[in-house]
Amino acid sequence: MLGAAGRMGQTVCAAVEAAPDLELVARFDAGDDFSVVAGSGAHVAVDFTIPAVTEANVHALIDAGIHAVVGTTGWTDESRTRVTEHLAQAGPASQGLGVLIAPNFGLSAVLAMTFAAKAARYFESAEVIELHHPDKVDAPSGTARHTARAIAAARAEAGLAPSPDATESGFEARGADVDGVRVHAVRLRGLVAHEEILFGNVGEQLIIRQDSFDRVSFMPGVLLAVREVVTRPGLTVGLENVLDLT
Amino acid sequence: MLGAAGRMGQTVCAAVEAAPDLELVARFDAGDDFSVVAGSGAHVAVDFTIPAVTEANVHALIDAGIHAVVGTTGWTDESRTRVTEHLAQAGPASQGLGVLIAPNFGLSAVLAMTFAAKAARYFESAEVIELHHPDKVDAPSGTARHTARAIAAARAEAGLAPSPDATESGFEARGADVDGVRVHAVRLRGLVAHEEILFGNVGEQLIIRQDSFDRVSFMPGVLLAVREVVTRPGLTVGLENVLDLT
Amino acid sequence: MLGAAGRMGQTVCAAVEAAPDLELVARFDAGDDFSVVAGSGAHVAVDFTIPAVTEANVHALIDAGIHAVVGTTGWTDESRTRVTEHLAQAGPASQGLGVLIAPNFGLSAVLAMTFAAKAARYFESAEVIELHHPDKVDAPSGTARHTARAIAAARAEAGLAPSPDATESGFEARGADVDGVRVHAVRLRGLVAHEEILFGNVGEQLIIRQDSFDRVSFMPGVLLAVREVVTRPGLTVGLENVLDLT
Amino acid sequence: MLGAAGRMGQTVCAAVEAAPDLELVARFDAGDDFSVVAGSGAHVAVDFTIPAVTEANVHALIDAGIHAVVGTTGWTDESRTRVTEHLAQAGPASQGLGVLIAPNFGLSAVLAMTFAAKAARYFESAEVIELHHPDKVDAPSGTARHTARAIAAARAEAGLAPSPDATESGFEARGADVDGVRVHAVRLRGLVAHEEILFGNVGEQLIIRQDSFDRVSFMPGVLLAVREVVTRPGLTVGLENVLDLT
Repeated sequence: MLGAAGRMGQTVCAAVEAAPDLELVARFDAGDDFSVVAGSGAHVAVDFTIPAVTEANVHALIDAGIHAVVGTTGWTDESRTRVTEHLAQAGPASQGLGVLIAPNFGLSAVLAMTFAAKAARYFESAEVIELHHPDKVDAPSGTARHTARAIAAARAEAGLAPSPDATESGFEARGADVDGVRVHAVRLRGLVAHEEILFGNVGEQLIIRQDSFDRVSFMPGVLLAVREVVTRPGLTVGLENVLDLT
Repeated sequence: MLGAAGRMGQTVCAAVEAAPDLELVARFDAGDDFSVVAGSGAHVAVDFTIPAVTEANVHALIDAGIHAVVGTTGWTDESRTRVTEHLAQAGPASQGLGVLIAPNFGLSAVLAMTFAAKAARYFESAEVIELHHPDKVDAPSGTARHTARAIAAARAEAGLAPSPDATESGFEARGADVDGVRVHAVRLRGLVAHEEILFGNVGEQLIIRQDSFDRVSFMPGVLLAVREVVTRPGLTVGLENVLDLT
Repeated sequence: MLGAAGRMGQTVCAAVEAAPDLELVARFDAGDDFSVVAGSGAHVAVDFTIPAVTEANVHALIDAGIHAVVGTTGWTDESRTRVTEHLAQAGPASQGLGVLIAPNFGLSAVLAMTFAAKAARYFESAEVIELHHPDKVDAPSGTARHTARAIAAARAEAGLAPSPDATESGFEARGADVDGVRVHAVRLRGLVAHEEILFGNVGEQLIIRQDSFDRVSFMPGVLLAVREVVTRPGLTVGLENVLDLT
Repeated sequence: MLGAAGRMGQTVCAAVEAAPDLELVARFDAGDDFSVVAGSGAHVAVDFTIPAVTEANVHALIDAGIHAVVGTTGWTDESRTRVTEHLAQAGPASQGLGVLIAPNFGLSAVLAMTFAAKAARYFESAEVIELHHPDKVDAPSGTARHTARAIAAARAEAGLAPSPDATESGFEARGADVDGVRVHAVRLRGLVAHEEILFGNVGEQLIIRQDSFDRVSFMPGVLLAVREVVTRPGLTVGLENVLDLT
């Protein structure tokens, strides 16, 4: 576990120790020597560190022949490309290595986004409401933005017209426009992180809603990633790509 | 029934005819002579006409000694005051007459607003989401605006601080600000008229939601008003004032 | 259109006439001679008739070389097998014919069921709530039963234990047991047909909900089926099989 | 604080210490001498102990001239009557003392129940869904049962017929019958304690929902009770009676 002393790191360590088919062999954090990891015999490493060091960690893991599951934010197209290239050029010890970078390990959040993208082409209207605790500084949430973009892309591909909207006054009540999809952000004491995606046709509605009440909710997704990354050589981005949704 | 040929008027006529304790004695519409109403023996008249004639109708009803239930929009503080004065000065035939003007006869909508106002002082956070069909031209809806104002007034009276909100970017996703209460407007094909009011404290949430699927939903409220207006002399504004909520 | 005079039949006729890429060439109902259909030049027939005649209709359509979209209930494994065999043995005029039988043409309902089946393996708990108008005589609804069975099958395939449940008293509040999945039926005036599927893990919840407010909501699904059936030779059962959900 | 070492007790102590207008002067638990309380100078005591001792505690508090807020369960009509009688006979030091016994200090739960009782007479249909974590042993929850009884009483008083229900088969999906109101119990990993009350008329629906995510959610209600009990001499049962809902 890289970033073992952080809040997510501690939660992951506890979850790995509680899983009968997994063994925690090393805890690594800022200030530790990487040999703790390289010499641990680990098959898979989980990285919840910080943007400043996560890319270097992943390259070191590839060199050490260890699969990587990465939940740290801050990755760019360029940094992901460097990982792909490193994996392609890696020596014999690193053949078949997998790296999974996921912005979100919440199964309910990832499934909600995935289903929303699939449903999008079949409905005349689509809007997104995200609801969070009031200490959140950005709006709308990254997850909601990501969902709206996926809906917009699916609608464009299916040749749908924009969602109908006759609004002539009061546009400020209509939310943010993310690629043509309206996204509303609610901030309410007592909530944690929630997303509701609404689709409408004449006479019918489909709602996909997910609630994250606690960071322990990410653990099933992290453990699933740890088990699956060893079977997926190369770079995979997004937990949805290791889910079986066929 | 005044405005008997309109969509609401026809629906009210059918509802009155279906009610065992009520009798429909006259249908009046544009072009008809008011003697149709005055000579009908009606105890109560229902007015769903148009803003241009509703005030004149009410004054004629008072002169004819007929109680009035009014669903037509367009009333102002001034026009309401003229009704109050007329009722106060009315002759013997008009003693004890009641006039009920209500912007909304939906029981679920009126109860949602009323409960929201009562709950408001007990929660740190409050927001409103209204959801309507996409042909609606104004946002947020009048009902949502009214609800938000009632919440804001109750919070102010109880000395509450503004709902917490750390948003630093993306304010356009945070909805309209109605007296300090955030109101979000969703427009979705398939919907009719819906309102959801969210309250939050640390560790808990209260949601009051109402759905209006069809204009027939206003009939229980209209019939209730017809039965109650005869017991309430003077002008009453808002269906909530004839509900028994103690 | 077979069953053109029925409520669904009339709605389908109106929807086909309103679709720019489709043409309505024949209306057929009880008492009509089948030559009305056979000689109409129709490429695709839609059957919303009655269980007693729908199978005979489909065989006659195959003989006439017309693709069939069938929404009538009452099909059994045996009657479906007879259609498959007929399609396999059909002469040159019937080569490549498609027959689509669907118990439900509501896109939101079909998508909700499909997504629920895909999500099922990723959650510790799953329950289904269906909500309908109070004139419905059976509980739980066929759709909810179908959804619960699909969830149960997916859970079994993934080797999940039963949903945890410590209930020791009051089992009658826990709903019907459909293959180990609890299904609750709500009956409420004002509702039409609604389904809510709830999934839970530690710290998170996924809800998939669909609302059918009106029978016009089936039209997008019927038109989609009409357009897709011509590209799918043989028998297809279930609208989900003509949706693009990959 | 009586029961200061328990989970609720510790949470209450923390909440009192964080409140600027309150001071925590004594912590009392099993084994402590009651003089800790009697001599503490406390104006108000909060009792979250156990059914076996809570009644004796309240009588001792009355003798000591201390107002009492009681969240412990196990009270009966008889034990409540004894408190009323003791308060009536109390000496000068105990004049004007208030005792508030509340089965639930969650503001959202108490408001939901209260609003449901008020709304009940205005709707043709009413049902209750309660949702809890799967470790709960009883169904339906006490809160849901209490809510259903209050709805049933309000419907009876208003002379309403039973909620319409044409169900002929599958009654086990229709939930428990509590005084004629259907109550459904959902058990789902990830949930804590939630209640949803649904009301329906032709064309409209009202939903009152409350979510309790954490026991800290009871603290605003406990603190409100502490502040209000000093102004309400005699025995008060139920937090709703100290809320201002007029």
